Amino acid sequence: MLNEIKGLHEECGVFGVWGASNANYLTYLGLHSLQHRGQEGAGIVSNDNGKLHSYRNLGLLSQVFYKPSLLASLVGDSAIGHVRYSTAGENKIENVQPLLFDFTDEQFALAHNGNLTNAITLKKELEKVGDIFKSSSDSEVLMHLIRHSKESKFVDQLKDSLRQIHGGFAYILLTKDALYMALDSHGFRPLSIGKLPEGGYVVASETCALDAVQAEFVRDVNPGELITINDDGMKIDHWTEKTKMAICSMEYIYFARPDSNILGVNVHTSRKHMGINLAKEKPVPADIVVGVPNSSLSAASGYAEASGLPYEMGLIKNQYMGREFIQPNQELREKSVRQKLAAVKGVVDGKRVVLVDDSIVRGTTCAFIVKLLRDAGATEVHLRIASPPFKFPSFYGIDIQNRSELIAAHKSNEEMRQQFGADSLEFLSEEGLISAIGLDFDAPYKGLDLSYFNGDYPTPLYDYEKNVTGE
Amino acid sequence: MLNEIKGLHEECGVFGVWGASNANYLTYLGLHSLQHRGQEGAGIVSNDNGKLHSYRNLGLLSQVFYKPSLLASLVGDSAIGHVRYSTAGENKIENVQPLLFDFTDEQFALAHNGNLTNAITLKKELEKVGDIFKSSSDSEVLMHLIRHSKESKFVDQLKDSLRQIHGGFAYILLTKDALYMALDSHGFRPLSIGKLPEGGYVVASETCALDAVQAEFVRDVNPGELITINDDGMKIDHWTEKTKMAICSMEYIYFARPDSNILGVNVHTSRKHMGINLAKEKPVPADIVVGVPNSSLSAASGYAEASGLPYEMGLIKNQYMGREFIQPNQELREKSVRQKLAAVKGVVDGKRVVLVDDSIVRGTTCAFIVKLLRDAGATEVHLRIASPPFKFPSFYGIDIQNRSELIAAHKSNEEMRQQFGADSLEFLSEEGLISAIGLDFDAPYKGLDLSYFNGDYPTPLYDYEKNVTGE
Amino acid sequence: MLNEIKGLHEECGVFGVWGASNANYLTYLGLHSLQHRGQEGAGIVSNDNGKLHSYRNLGLLSQVFYKPSLLASLVGDSAIGHVRYSTAGENKIENVQPLLFDFTDEQFALAHNGNLTNAITLKKELEKVGDIFKSSSDSEVLMHLIRHSKESKFVDQLKDSLRQIHGGFAYILLTKDALYMALDSHGFRPLSIGKLPEGGYVVASETCALDAVQAEFVRDVNPGELITINDDGMKIDHWTEKTKMAICSMEYIYFARPDSNILGVNVHTSRKHMGINLAKEKPVPADIVVGVPNSSLSAASGYAEASGLPYEMGLIKNQYMGREFIQPNQELREKSVRQKLAAVKGVVDGKRVVLVDDSIVRGTTCAFIVKLLRDAGATEVHLRIASPPFKFPSFYGIDIQNRSELIAAHKSNEEMRQQFGADSLEFLSEEGLISAIGLDFDAPYKGLDLSYFNGDYPTPLYDYEKNVTGE
Amino acid sequence: MLNEIKGLHEECGVFGVWGASNANYLTYLGLHSLQHRGQEGAGIVSNDNGKLHSYRNLGLLSQVFYKPSLLASLVGDSAIGHVRYSTAGENKIENVQPLLFDFTDEQFALAHNGNLTNAITLKKELEKVGDIFKSSSDSEVLMHLIRHSKESKFVDQLKDSLRQIHGGFAYILLTKDALYMALDSHGFRPLSIGKLPEGGYVVASETCALDAVQAEFVRDVNPGELITINDDGMKIDHWTEKTKMAICSMEYIYFARPDSNILGVNVHTSRKHMGINLAKEKPVPADIVVGVPNSSLSAASGYAEASGLPYEMGLIKNQYMGREFIQPNQELREKSVRQKLAAVKGVVDGKRVVLVDDSIVRGTTCAFIVKLLRDAGATEVHLRIASPPFKFPSFYGIDIQNRSELIAAHKSNEEMRQQFGADSLEFLSEEGLISAIGLDFDAPYKGLDLSYFNGDYPTPLYDYEKNVTGE
Repeated sequence: MLNEIKGLHEECGVFGVWGASNANYLTYLGLHSLQHRGQEGAGIVSNDNGKLHSYRNLGLLSQVFYKPSLLASLVGDSAIGHVRYSTAGENKIENVQPLLFDFTDEQFALAHNGNLTNAITLKKELEKVGDIFKSSSDSEVLMHLIRHSKESKFVDQLKDSLRQIHGGFAYILLTKDALYMALDSHGFRPLSIGKLPEGGYVVASETCALDAVQAEFVRDVNPGELITINDDGMKIDHWTEKTKMAICSMEYIYFARPDSNILGVNVHTSRKHMGINLAKEKPVPADIVVGVPNSSLSAASGYAEASGLPYEMGLIKNQYMGREFIQPNQELREKSVRQKLAAVKGVVDGKRVVLVDDSIVRGTTCAFIVKLLRDAGATEVHLRIASPPFKFPSFYGIDIQNRSELIAAHKSNEEMRQQFGADSLEFLSEEGLISAIGLDFDAPYKGLDLSYFNGDYPTPLYDYEKNVTGE
Repeated sequence: MLNEIKGLHEECGVFGVWGASNANYLTYLGLHSLQHRGQEGAGIVSNDNGKLHSYRNLGLLSQVFYKPSLLASLVGDSAIGHVRYSTAGENKIENVQPLLFDFTDEQFALAHNGNLTNAITLKKELEKVGDIFKSSSDSEVLMHLIRHSKESKFVDQLKDSLRQIHGGFAYILLTKDALYMALDSHGFRPLSIGKLPEGGYVVASETCALDAVQAEFVRDVNPGELITINDDGMKIDHWTEKTKMAICSMEYIYFARPDSNILGVNVHTSRKHMGINLAKEKPVPADIVVGVPNSSLSAASGYAEASGLPYEMGLIKNQYMGREFIQPNQELREKSVRQKLAAVKGVVDGKRVVLVDDSIVRGTTCAFIVKLLRDAGATEVHLRIASPPFKFPSFYGIDIQNRSELIAAHKSNEEMRQQFGADSLEFLSEEGLISAIGLDFDAPYKGLDLSYFNGDYPTPLYDYEKNVTGE
Repeated sequence: MLNEIKGLHEECGVFGVWGASNANYLTYLGLHSLQHRGQEGAGIVSNDNGKLHSYRNLGLLSQVFYKPSLLASLVGDSAIGHVRYSTAGENKIENVQPLLFDFTDEQFALAHNGNLTNAITLKKELEKVGDIFKSSSDSEVLMHLIRHSKESKFVDQLKDSLRQIHGGFAYILLTKDALYMALDSHGFRPLSIGKLPEGGYVVASETCALDAVQAEFVRDVNPGELITINDDGMKIDHWTEKTKMAICSMEYIYFARPDSNILGVNVHTSRKHMGINLAKEKPVPADIVVGVPNSSLSAASGYAEASGLPYEMGLIKNQYMGREFIQPNQELREKSVRQKLAAVKGVVDGKRVVLVDDSIVRGTTCAFIVKLLRDAGATEVHLRIASPPFKFPSFYGIDIQNRSELIAAHKSNEEMRQQFGADSLEFLSEEGLISAIGLDFDAPYKGLDLSYFNGDYPTPLYDYEKNVTGE
Repeated sequence: MLNEIKGLHEECGVFGVWGASNANYLTYLGLHSLQHRGQEGAGIVSNDNGKLHSYRNLGLLSQVFYKPSLLASLVGDSAIGHVRYSTAGENKIENVQPLLFDFTDEQFALAHNGNLTNAITLKKELEKVGDIFKSSSDSEVLMHLIRHSKESKFVDQLKDSLRQIHGGFAYILLTKDALYMALDSHGFRPLSIGKLPEGGYVVASETCALDAVQAEFVRDVNPGELITINDDGMKIDHWTEKTKMAICSMEYIYFARPDSNILGVNVHTSRKHMGINLAKEKPVPADIVVGVPNSSLSAASGYAEASGLPYEMGLIKNQYMGREFIQPNQELREKSVRQKLAAVKGVVDGKRVVLVDDSIVRGTTCAFIVKLLRDAGATEVHLRIASPPFKFPSFYGIDIQNRSELIAAHKSNEEMRQQFGADSLEFLSEEGLISAIGLDFDAPYKGLDLSYFNGDYPTPLYDYEKNVTGE
């Protein structure tokens, strides 16, 4: 909820299908269930017996495909699609994926979730030998590397190229012959494969997209894998053997849809356990527990269950999108932000409230929500955050790339509490988070990337080194 | 949730403001919080020092006012607005309110929530004397009666006219001199008055709209009242003294926003108590309680609390609007309906589920939702409805006007259970509903209109008599 | 040309068809050829076996019917349509015609070209007895009169009502049973009937619309006639016998399309003769003749032919519509008006130019065009106007209703010449105009309304009396 | 006129400005006057103190810049713009120019009018060394050559690259430092330079665009020139000395606006002389001369003047764009094509008509127009074409690239006459065309490219060799 205000964005969702009639409609349905991963652009490329067709534009999926003919024209039995979030200033159509490459004698399409940490360096090198980039997206680098590869077979060119890029990536590629998917060596971003009851394979950033097309879950893509799906079936290969699981913990905490399973763990359930652990770690005498809708409702219900306090709807999100008019004065501006979120006076009036939020990033909404509750009559507001303090930027596919944006990087607990106007402020511990999710990989933090909280990045940062050190 | 599928619609929301600069923006904000009461049309009329300006169109509020200039041009210190749901076939711009009447020497605007039971009879009589109607809306009849009144003062013409119309109505009228509001003699529809901190009055169908503009609640409009607000303040009058409270119970059960208070009772809290009473009346051994999002979540949390079972997010609603493409085949059509609602496999798999829904109208979604849960692995699904069986149509402002549409009017409990594929099906009792809401008026059913459930209509039905009897 | 600048507008075009499959498409084609008569709104009402369907909106015909389904849905074998120009401030959808009236038991649609001179008086009287108007158009008055008529048959109600209205009107009405057309007693506005080769009748403001649907011309509607077309064929009747032809001379001079015939006279040919007569009356030594595109090209070619001077393309109109951006400075504003019209330097440089324009209304463009030619090198510019000085406003269907707007009403020939910067300025005489058109009715000015030039109005002016006298 | 039907399209118009505030508005005005050169896409790139801003889209200029902010945001003192026609199948946004290239450390923009004859060969070679093209336009090749050039200075890289491309091209390029323009060695496409009265240079495909911004004509760009305009003024250089003038004769005959001067010759005047020469070469007894609007009106007036026959408006073009609905039957389809063009019955009825058209390409409209005239009563129709038979395709910037499309390549005069249903059919001779235009360069055909008519291509055809030979 309020992700526009929180300013924390996943950078994409991908979906692919091979060997199913109406691949265009299936991709649309899959992308629709991944819309929460990117709202600024969407596109689909279909493979019509070897000829690739593409349509993409800025906006939500339903805005991009605003008339039926746009989708209907993407005929074929296989397709890939993408929903995109983009950082400011780069929100232009050239960057909307899938990227389709038309060569004189062949076509490729590519969709990417993640962020490459050495894209800038690679791009400069490629430009030196005459390459021209058509987007400002890091994703395009892969195709240039492929075209410069000395290998002769496409799959070898692809492996060769994957070995040159670093960072977080879940790539899917479509050619006339096959659907390829590749994951980085740490598995930062989720990617799951399913099988359609009517035949054919699908691949998606989250399992909720498999459910959306009623596909049966087959397996997750593992770090370092390069999987090829064609008319002969699925072939699993590796572009590297040096892998170590470090799945992004924010997928569980905030990004993914509650009905998705990531590495076998249900997201809602993990959030509920974060709330349960938080209640155990940081109890407080109160009358009711209220979650910030919608992403914190699972954690709030867990906190309520564990604390024995009633779980109440103390905040309500308007399900209709408003419009940010330029307001003629401050008074109206203040009223205008309340379009999205309202406190339920009849519920919180006279009550001591435990307010559960999933995370604090910039901290800009906390003070607003605490004030909403106090204006509605809450006598106490105890802020409980179902994750540890977010202190370090991310470079594997989330748009927080500077420490200066992160409030917990610069303020103490007590400073933040005062700024938010809360009666108390407490966070879940790293251990509480790890046990709530319950992974058990043979890797640091049981397979979780916790660098947001502890700065322990699983990889070198290349182009971004200065963002962490040189602040 | 799924109101498109459930086919149960409130027929409107109204908002008015007098004596506040930026009346247009305030009305926009108020209407935005009432958008759930009508999604098919919206409009605002402002009063700019005696000259009324109007803009209205089909669609959601944010679609109607799709560019800032449309709203900005509605200057003035007072305004009224309307969001509309319309029955099929009449979804045309002429019917979108407020209706603005331009006479050679004066202007009136009118917005209406409710339904008149003798509008057809009145319209025919008026046409006989030469009147021409510009809309097919029953709301327009009032203005024609006013223009034919023998009284000389506007307020007397208005009273005269209100005495000729029957049914459910909350009317607000704007002239260059005043803002008027009138409620029918049973108070079928809610209407509340607030005061802005910066001065000026507001009136709205629900208190959530008062909160949206940070107005302080002053009082509800009572049955039979005619209230005038002008630059001299608020004047309370009556157009009839024969009143008996019969507020629509479906406002509490389904229509109103959880953060609204109706006659002093918070909607979320009343729903939670419906769930509590339901758990007491109709317990069942199970593992988890799941509510149908979003309208049944309050009742579900009440059921969980009272039964001691865990409250879980077993169903998830996609917050992004999809698009209903004409699907090429049945398989895709089936997948397409799942765009809106998904079961959370990781939560319900292997569980005995109590599924709480607020009401059953046509029954078309129940079987779908039960199947969603079973496909996701639920071993048992016990359907619990937080209101009594809905057996009788409504004529006071809701678009169910034929018994044939109502499944509970024709099928037994057991027949419905089988049709839905549930393991058990139980409803809340009338007593349970009355006590959950907790009104205490000196009127049948303590002031509630329960005709949906028992056919005991508080008024004669006039034009609609045949809809109940002659089926 | 430049009608946006000249500010002289015909107030509408009408089209009707009875007894032809695809009446909607035929009406679209007919209206398209009448688009020059009104660019601010368009609509069509079809008669689908007794049920009238309507669609209308602001904008050009092709903008209104911007998607095929809007037109395709207007099924039926008969239809009427309208293109509208509206005076400022009243450019709202409620006024776009045809006006469709939905009564409880019947439907009527009406389209009108012209202007009623006693509409305001009638409207006030009707409002006194309770009538409510849905548009601010004078056209609607007729339907109210029909509804108040004491006659029992519709055709008698219609005659009764036509006798109460004054001014200029060509009305077409559609009911489930018939297509009616009625002309005022002076025939101010043209209206012609044709027959489709595939069967069925059409009626249109100009014969170019008959040609557009390949209908054969049958006859013009005469002053005072009321014609009914239904499945039994065409029946000619009269609502008055007191008639005297006074067709609007500006139809020949400026409004009508060159390929139309009005009362048997081809418009282009009449204009060419205006040019010929002008050359004879007001010769001048010069090198070339240039017409203001497009409306003055016929007169210019006539002037050239009669004078023996070469006819040259000295001005060129951009066929693509530009966009009037708010320009940041005066310099750009001046360049911006040249988007529409350009002088042909290669043609006019060093030449003495006779510049032929059809008429001068406000005079705002004359100075601009003379300057264009001088900037392009013309050594002399002799302005020749192919009609007499326009000194009196019009009340029969053209939007010039105040003398103050008319430059020739306030300035002498010499004052105008100086203001325009021309070397000479001369006008066609009334006699030259009459003989160029060549009508021969037994009526003043051989059947032409020349009130624009001589103030000799064929009728009393009723509501507009003050516009002429009380200036 | 009817260029949609004739199927003959210029492939672009370019405009550039350096050193003028409001470069964006000036470019808009310039492009608006060049809209006839391309209607399928438009774009502008501005240079804002070294930062290039771009906006482009499919559609007419006024559709692309449909809201003022889109143009206003392109700030800066220099800009280039482009209007584009594209061949079928490639009408996608990626191909709309100017093409903007964002490199890590610099930006270039490029706009091109013409067609390269060796682009396919060059593109394949560049792809082999790893290049990726972002458009399917031949124009992009130049930038790739620049990036691969071994030269160190940009202007030398540019010359180096220009020497590698062949065919027809008028290129303008914008960098942060300068505006560059280059013409091919035969000057196939026109390009003219002007000076703004307020300071600053402009360059445009036609002089009508100089007039549109009130710039004074300075000089035409000559074959083989590379001109640089920067803050130090204009510098004229050459990329080749081997030049021979061969300006496209179709610019005079059909493409260019009548008010433009090309190489000092006014286009309208040249067309009038084509008509005069045609009358002398191919007289015929007749009553009137009619031109096909709008492109043939100049020639028709010349024919009339020389023959002594009256010049009449026998055909009229609808100035409002219609809409090509899918018509339910053949009868309607036939009526629908008449939306664009109508015969003036009142003019042609009973007349022997000389019908003047500028050229015959596919011949698809001739039979239609002859039939229009006969249906309107013409007793004879003598078709006179103001250019020689069009028998050979073009590869220098016009979209006729196969002989099979050209009717005169396959049919005799008599066969064509019969197909069109004309009473006679005659063409202007090559000599008549050359003398009408009146150039006098020391080059074949006095500097004209007449390959359309005689197959005498001024250059080798490279990639297109087979289009001429191997048919």
